[in-house]
Amino acid sequence: MNFKYSDKIRDMKPSAIREIFKSLGTPGAISFAAGNPAPESFPVDAIADISADIFRNSANAALQYSVTEGYPKLRTLVSERLRERFSVGADFDSTIITSGGQQGIELACKVLCNEGDTVIAENPSFIGALNAFRSLGANIVGVELEDDGISVTALEEALKSNPRTKLLYLIPTFHNPAGITMSLEKRRAVYALAQKYDIVIIEDNPYGELRFAGEKIPTIKSMDTDGRVIYCGSFSKILSAGMRVGFLCAHGDLVSKIVVAKQVEDVHTNIFFQMICAEYITRYDLDAHIANIRALYKHKATVMLDALDREMPDCVKFTRPEGGLFLWCTLPDSIDPTTFINRAKEALVFVVPGVAFNCDETAGSHSFRLNYSMPSDDEINRGVRILAEIIKDML
Amino acid sequence: MNFKYSDKIRDMKPSAIREIFKSLGTPGAISFAAGNPAPESFPVDAIADISADIFRNSANAALQYSVTEGYPKLRTLVSERLRERFSVGADFDSTIITSGGQQGIELACKVLCNEGDTVIAENPSFIGALNAFRSLGANIVGVELEDDGISVTALEEALKSNPRTKLLYLIPTFHNPAGITMSLEKRRAVYALAQKYDIVIIEDNPYGELRFAGEKIPTIKSMDTDGRVIYCGSFSKILSAGMRVGFLCAHGDLVSKIVVAKQVEDVHTNIFFQMICAEYITRYDLDAHIANIRALYKHKATVMLDALDREMPDCVKFTRPEGGLFLWCTLPDSIDPTTFINRAKEALVFVVPGVAFNCDETAGSHSFRLNYSMPSDDEINRGVRILAEIIKDML
Repeated sequence: MNFKYSDKIRDMKPSAIREIFKSLGTPGAISFAAGNPAPESFPVDAIADISADIFRNSANAALQYSVTEGYPKLRTLVSERLRERFSVGADFDSTIITSGGQQGIELACKVLCNEGDTVIAENPSFIGALNAFRSLGANIVGVELEDDGISVTALEEALKSNPRTKLLYLIPTFHNPAGITMSLEKRRAVYALAQKYDIVIIEDNPYGELRFAGEKIPTIKSMDTDGRVIYCGSFSKILSAGMRVGFLCAHGDLVSKIVVAKQVEDVHTNIFFQMICAEYITRYDLDAHIANIRALYKHKATVMLDALDREMPDCVKFTRPEGGLFLWCTLPDSIDPTTFINRAKEALVFVVPGVAFNCDETAGSHSFRLNYSMPSDDEINRGVRILAEIIKDML
Repeated sequence: MNFKYSDKIRDMKPSAIREIFKSLGTPGAISFAAGNPAPESFPVDAIADISADIFRNSANAALQYSVTEGYPKLRTLVSERLRERFSVGADFDSTIITSGGQQGIELACKVLCNEGDTVIAENPSFIGALNAFRSLGANIVGVELEDDGISVTALEEALKSNPRTKLLYLIPTFHNPAGITMSLEKRRAVYALAQKYDIVIIEDNPYGELRFAGEKIPTIKSMDTDGRVIYCGSFSKILSAGMRVGFLCAHGDLVSKIVVAKQVEDVHTNIFFQMICAEYITRYDLDAHIANIRALYKHKATVMLDALDREMPDCVKFTRPEGGLFLWCTLPDSIDPTTFINRAKEALVFVVPGVAFNCDETAGSHSFRLNYSMPSDDEINRGVRILAEIIKDML
């Protein structure tokens, strides 16, 4: 039969990144395309030990249906941690466990946006969030990203010209894909604009724990006196990405609607791994574990930045992340980005083309995203050299 | 701030069942309200052994991001099992792993229905599905359920008078909440109507493996020559509900859109438990395990039916399930159902009021759902006696 798809889904395509991910099997391939945490960041032995204990002591609870809000002990631990580390969580706030940070973003949009409502996002932005907004029929408006975060002037212009704006989606810390961090001044200005135009902010902070340079900057949620910031986080980059355990902290009224919306998506998040997260936080030193991950990524980012400094011609610009998994390279105008990406692919070096992160899918991009958490030092050095050689050849 | 929720979510309430679930802590309470499988149905030792092996041999793959479609080995095993056991899966079909059967239902509606499109469902029907349709702004039309399944005459009337119908949602086997099974004749007639009116059927079959009496009846999907049936299934009732692993088999074109929609909800289903399911099927005898669950539920259903036969006055009607977890009781018109439910609650016997399963939320119901998979034999006998005494007192 001829399927008549919903308008919102009909023209959607699978994420370019997930598709690249599938074609990485070729021997000798070097991938800077992943968004994956380093496998060294998984505390395998501890998780295995906790698992064995859960099967011994609480198997029935771990394998049975549970409540949509999440495992109570984990909700409490996450709330405490958010308050202590990030000053996140006022008296009016509540925390729900989600199936990865991704689900939190999608649910936030679902409970607030009608089809045709506007979501403003940094341009470029995280493809998973943009596609979530598209899948709900939202209208996405991109606002230029500067070195210290979203352009506040352009943001106000966008708010003025889009009266149906409901949401502002931001990754203020170690931005994906751009690798930059929003300044404190801009965070304050952005929150003030959200107040002025009475909109809700989604602060997506999956990488917030992974700072390896520079000074910590307060989250936007920590400034939230009105309850207008929805804070999304995740265990993906600090314990395991494959377990799909994230969390969302927002005003209790909003969370109660998000619970209803989550219930019809997956009833609740895998309860066994919620218990594992809770036990890990209780019995192990999560901060020490995160310190190791930070050191690892600091090393890998340094290797990549050194290689870029060494190999790339001056006309190639790149960001210098203070944390997270990514940096963002921009080619000179004279180089056709599609030809470059294809030549890199032929040389078995995979990067994600900037177009994948565009709010406007029809716009072009001279940028590409590089990931340093997955490749080895040697792969980083070889891969960057290959990319630089292709660029030099194209100049 | 005053949140402006989306139209589709604004008036939604949490599932009545999930809410009852939360208030079950009272000592001495007898719950017939759950939809939970018996804890004895979880093969704890096997799952614990497989877990230990996965942590030893494949920890990185089990804790890392994976593909949205699902763990390839599990997809193959599920496809094979569906073909062998249920004649499900034509050449044009494809299988995707979902986060429980619930997610399959929600995604199917998301990719096919615009807001305002109609989904026809049996009345009563599974509250999780109805709420999923509501959360997507679909218009739900209920069609009367008879002892041998949906009324085919009323279904055609509904199709005629609702030209925007996109989907027909059915639980043909061991219906939740009604506990009945659709006859083969009706399955054929329903499929013919779907062809005539060019709509898609969701065949929800979470209990299909749990037949303990009567003759097996072919699935509607097994008759699907056009690719218009979306088949949803789950491991919740045969391995573990809390792990949230289900599956969906449908035409490949549809599945490719469902993959896109799933990607933005949770990226992929917990990969560790997908591996556990695959290893369990490979290394253990799933059929023997299911045979044990069937025997257990046959026993429990018999205890409950015997108690109902013994205790209930003739004016109370109830269904006689041949499988699944539920039966459906209907009070005489003279008894006010709300008063009855409240008196049962005061006597610490919890049942789910029929209104929770109504397609039309404003309609009343003289029925209630009883679950027999969770309570002990003694609880079943005592609980049914208490319910019967309340009813006799109200006559």
